[in-house]
Amino acid sequence: MIKITFPDGSVKEFESGITPYEVAVSISEGLARNVLAAKVDDTIVELNYKITHDSSLMLFTWNNTEGKEVFWHSSAHLMAAALEELYPGIKFGIGPSIENGFYYDIDFMNYSISSDDFPAIEAKMSELAFQKMPIVRKEVSRKEALDYFTLKRDEYKLELINDLPEDATISFYSNGKFTDLCRGPHLFDTAVIKAIKLLNTAGAYWRGDEKRKQLTRIYGITFPKKKELDEYLVLLEEAKKRDHRKLGKEMELFFFSQKVGAGLPIWLPKGTALRKRLENFLESVQKKYGYQQVMCPHIGNVELYKTSGHYQKYGEDSFRPITTPQEGEEFFLKPMNCPHHCEIYASKPRSYRDLPVRIAEFGTVYRYEQSGELHGLTRVRGFTQDDAHIFCTPDQLKGEFCKVIDIILYIFKTLDFKEYIAQVSLKDPVNKEKYIGSDDNWHKAEAAIMEAAAEKGLETIVEIGEAAFYGPKLDFMVKDALGRKWQLGTVQVDYNLPERFELFYTDADQQKRTPVMIHRAPFGSMERFVAVLLEHTAGNFPLWLTPEQAIILPVSEKYLDYAQQLKIEFDELNVRAIVDERNEKTGRKIRDAEMNKIPFMLIIGEKETADHSVSVREHGVGDVGVMPVEDFAKMVINRTKNELLGNK
Amino acid sequence: MIKITFPDGSVKEFESGITPYEVAVSISEGLARNVLAAKVDDTIVELNYKITHDSSLMLFTWNNTEGKEVFWHSSAHLMAAALEELYPGIKFGIGPSIENGFYYDIDFMNYSISSDDFPAIEAKMSELAFQKMPIVRKEVSRKEALDYFTLKRDEYKLELINDLPEDATISFYSNGKFTDLCRGPHLFDTAVIKAIKLLNTAGAYWRGDEKRKQLTRIYGITFPKKKELDEYLVLLEEAKKRDHRKLGKEMELFFFSQKVGAGLPIWLPKGTALRKRLENFLESVQKKYGYQQVMCPHIGNVELYKTSGHYQKYGEDSFRPITTPQEGEEFFLKPMNCPHHCEIYASKPRSYRDLPVRIAEFGTVYRYEQSGELHGLTRVRGFTQDDAHIFCTPDQLKGEFCKVIDIILYIFKTLDFKEYIAQVSLKDPVNKEKYIGSDDNWHKAEAAIMEAAAEKGLETIVEIGEAAFYGPKLDFMVKDALGRKWQLGTVQVDYNLPERFELFYTDADQQKRTPVMIHRAPFGSMERFVAVLLEHTAGNFPLWLTPEQAIILPVSEKYLDYAQQLKIEFDELNVRAIVDERNEKTGRKIRDAEMNKIPFMLIIGEKETADHSVSVREHGVGDVGVMPVEDFAKMVINRTKNELLGNK
Repeated sequence: MIKITFPDGSVKEFESGITPYEVAVSISEGLARNVLAAKVDDTIVELNYKITHDSSLMLFTWNNTEGKEVFWHSSAHLMAAALEELYPGIKFGIGPSIENGFYYDIDFMNYSISSDDFPAIEAKMSELAFQKMPIVRKEVSRKEALDYFTLKRDEYKLELINDLPEDATISFYSNGKFTDLCRGPHLFDTAVIKAIKLLNTAGAYWRGDEKRKQLTRIYGITFPKKKELDEYLVLLEEAKKRDHRKLGKEMELFFFSQKVGAGLPIWLPKGTALRKRLENFLESVQKKYGYQQVMCPHIGNVELYKTSGHYQKYGEDSFRPITTPQEGEEFFLKPMNCPHHCEIYASKPRSYRDLPVRIAEFGTVYRYEQSGELHGLTRVRGFTQDDAHIFCTPDQLKGEFCKVIDIILYIFKTLDFKEYIAQVSLKDPVNKEKYIGSDDNWHKAEAAIMEAAAEKGLETIVEIGEAAFYGPKLDFMVKDALGRKWQLGTVQVDYNLPERFELFYTDADQQKRTPVMIHRAPFGSMERFVAVLLEHTAGNFPLWLTPEQAIILPVSEKYLDYAQQLKIEFDELNVRAIVDERNEKTGRKIRDAEMNKIPFMLIIGEKETADHSVSVREHGVGDVGVMPVEDFAKMVINRTKNELLGNK
Repeated sequence: MIKITFPDGSVKEFESGITPYEVAVSISEGLARNVLAAKVDDTIVELNYKITHDSSLMLFTWNNTEGKEVFWHSSAHLMAAALEELYPGIKFGIGPSIENGFYYDIDFMNYSISSDDFPAIEAKMSELAFQKMPIVRKEVSRKEALDYFTLKRDEYKLELINDLPEDATISFYSNGKFTDLCRGPHLFDTAVIKAIKLLNTAGAYWRGDEKRKQLTRIYGITFPKKKELDEYLVLLEEAKKRDHRKLGKEMELFFFSQKVGAGLPIWLPKGTALRKRLENFLESVQKKYGYQQVMCPHIGNVELYKTSGHYQKYGEDSFRPITTPQEGEEFFLKPMNCPHHCEIYASKPRSYRDLPVRIAEFGTVYRYEQSGELHGLTRVRGFTQDDAHIFCTPDQLKGEFCKVIDIILYIFKTLDFKEYIAQVSLKDPVNKEKYIGSDDNWHKAEAAIMEAAAEKGLETIVEIGEAAFYGPKLDFMVKDALGRKWQLGTVQVDYNLPERFELFYTDADQQKRTPVMIHRAPFGSMERFVAVLLEHTAGNFPLWLTPEQAIILPVSEKYLDYAQQLKIEFDELNVRAIVDERNEKTGRKIRDAEMNKIPFMLIIGEKETADHSVSVREHGVGDVGVMPVEDFAKMVINRTKNELLGNK
């Protein structure tokens, strides 16, 4: 008999050689029906893995990430089996599960393939799945493995086998006629794969190397139930509509120019105004908390980054240095703002009475990314951090953390992010040598974060060993309206830079002491945040933030003068309005304004012109009635104010 | 007899061989006493130059730039003569006149020299000047010249002689025992040099080449009258007090860090706030005129600058390109904003109805300057232009020019620059091949500038042939409170970039036409403008702009709470106030606040705390009386508003 420990801590005895599936059966019929994979001690295994010694056991269903991973990995094999039947002789690269589904990289030889072929492939996959074919594992010798794929003329698999270490266990997995080199684990059989959708194709260099052959990557996703696929496709459709790249173009917020360079966003007038409103909002919040704004250049001498240590650490992978035509100087594009801010701290003597010093900047930084990795505003080569660095005493850490959390939560609330979690990353208590700073200071900092998070009622995940070498940190993740998670702001304690820059303050006892530094950026970057906000709101920004708050729709050309005059009045009242000057029917103008997500449509005709009033229609609401111009302006200003106070 | 034409057009006959001095004598005794140099036809000559043919003649006194130049050039020789007597064996580089005075670069051999030695040198110069020594010109052969300086062992002069073209006339000038290689012209004698002041020393590489020997440069200035020197020294003293580098440090507006790099200003919190107020001011003015703000990255792919032509023209002298660690891309630090703005124009189709398109950006640009050329905020390597580009039809040029002039004059008025002139630079009508664009368009553009300047009543200087190859321009120069001239904003017409970027708009007749582009930057750069404003106002900024509008001075610690409460009230009313929390006597607090140029001092004690009032003292004015807090705030807000409306 062996002892099996379950996640709830309970322990049961079983015959040696029992499989996870048999354990599931012993627990309940429902679990047996739904279990997809298992974890024995630290290893994910198949359901027919024989447990032969005392172990801990976790059983995974579709509700676990691990369950989904196995499901999708097996789905990749299923797709490969289907493709091999449809396109005999094609060769296979790799086919893993990913965050949402799976892909397989394939050399289609002389076949040409497009999304038009997806229905046939999906049908073949369903047909094979329906056959309830088991997925069979077989361990083979290196020679057997090489012989098999030599015969099959699949040079990709041969290369993979040759790259395996001498002593590696080599395993094959077969479903039907298709056999793959694979570590596993996999499903019992493919019958549980009930709903199948191939999503798109893309080019992918073999082993990510642009000098090697470009294979065809096919992305797909599968579910145990058709209903889940349908829901996913609706979500996908909704996500497509909300794609910030699409909305950013439609709303004329930003664009990319080939000549300026990939991953270097250019903010158009409406986007600039929006971003400035966001920046002003952050700045005013931060001002209340004693932050001081600064402006630094976008380059720094190599000496700066040698002092900070960034040169030694990232020098090779970053944009190459800028040299001067004379004098042999060497500069780097600024990849972060902290070294500049350390120099500001050091620009005059500081006393303990001056601390905390909070230096803030909307600092544009540049970091090299491969062009293939770039994506809209979320993965760029130049971005503006809503950055600040707080220099304080170790005793002030907790107070400062509480204030930073207050700011972040206030921002989330104002911008209608209701769901968020925070991850606390602490040091690994075993490998102490990985970290700089005294135990005492680490203890203070970790306690400060944990206590501050608890006091502020944050939902947190604690990750041991995930701290940076220079200090612990707190990362925020928000859930958007579609339930997708986005990593946003970060708060990090840093004992390293103040030492490297030899920063100090004169303490009450006249001793020179080194301050602690907190890096914090609630949005992360303006670019990323605007992208998330676009996808979260589908472009329906809150009133205070939206590019246009109102559009004035004269019912005929006769009222164009009044419309223009209204616009000037609104300008002076700081209500953002535009005029639809087109010679179109009012119905058409309303439809277009609704489509452009402008919160208020102000229809004006004879009566309104005579009364100095507007007939108000609200986006997504409908007719709100006629009101004096002043009342409308007051309403917009009040709503804006309330939004900024966090009252909805 | 020869005919001499005077500047007023009058013509007189003289004996051939007459000298300018003799002509001056023939005109008046006063002129003869004051004349310093002359110009015969196109050449500046000495007063004893013999005129032997019909010529035009101008006589220069101290009131002419040309007169001063000769005066100071001779003063440099006088200084050299004095130095040679005091430090036998020293060797001489070059010694020209400059904008204010003169310098001489000298190899002092084993002597060491400092400003402590200036009085002795000045005394020796006065002694020599008093001897009324004539300055004698002598033309010599190359051999004579080489022999003389070989004997004197002056390798600098030998190098200069050897570099002269074969057929050059070589002339020596001697005053007393000192003989110099010099083209001249010079004063008759040094007796007119009545007031002498040596200013400072600096290191200067021989021929500006850092690989060659560093000589000692001595700067000096001289005047015909002691009173003029005294006035100049007062001005110099005042200018020193107003030096923006000194004030910027004292007022904590900006600083430079060695590690970040020379010429890369870092804006401290107060400077950042000040600069942002300036930017917001400009932005709000520009918004009224239909400008749209954008934000662009600080780098651009080399392709962008190949398209713009900047790469071909300035590529070699600019910061070297930034390459990528992979993919072989090449970027440049953005040296100007126009190429990016052209890409914005091109980002969507434009119709004639959309024009003018006015794209504005506070765009930070980077241009390489030799580190020795850098100076505070006026000569930097990174600066932020208050830039905008207007894209319009040729017919809209004049209207747009008028509006740009309106904006610039409004800004000058608001910032209390009462004196300014504008320079119009037109094309050279002879060398047409130097310019791009049709005659018709040039005519339109030049007429537009001239007419707009005339309509707006601008005082202008017209410079023929000074236009850029791509279009005519209008440059603004302001005079500061010390009467010094500063080049500020510029407005330029450009036919070139729209063509290079293949920009167009669809005209009313459906034809594609190329827009004209106007570059304009009223301040030039934020850095330069803040420097000029500091020197103009000596740091006494207008109320709307000044870092702190009021300082609250509690008469004892008892009233510190009230002081802090007041600060919060002022924050909410947007009145910028700080509290002097120090435990100092009120008299001391007032003195310090006066020195810090804070416009209002608010003294609070028992009565004020009880009444919710403040006792107001105005900087440079004195006691203004006690008033309710609300009244004081209202006064500050009203004054600010009036300043921004241009009412003083």
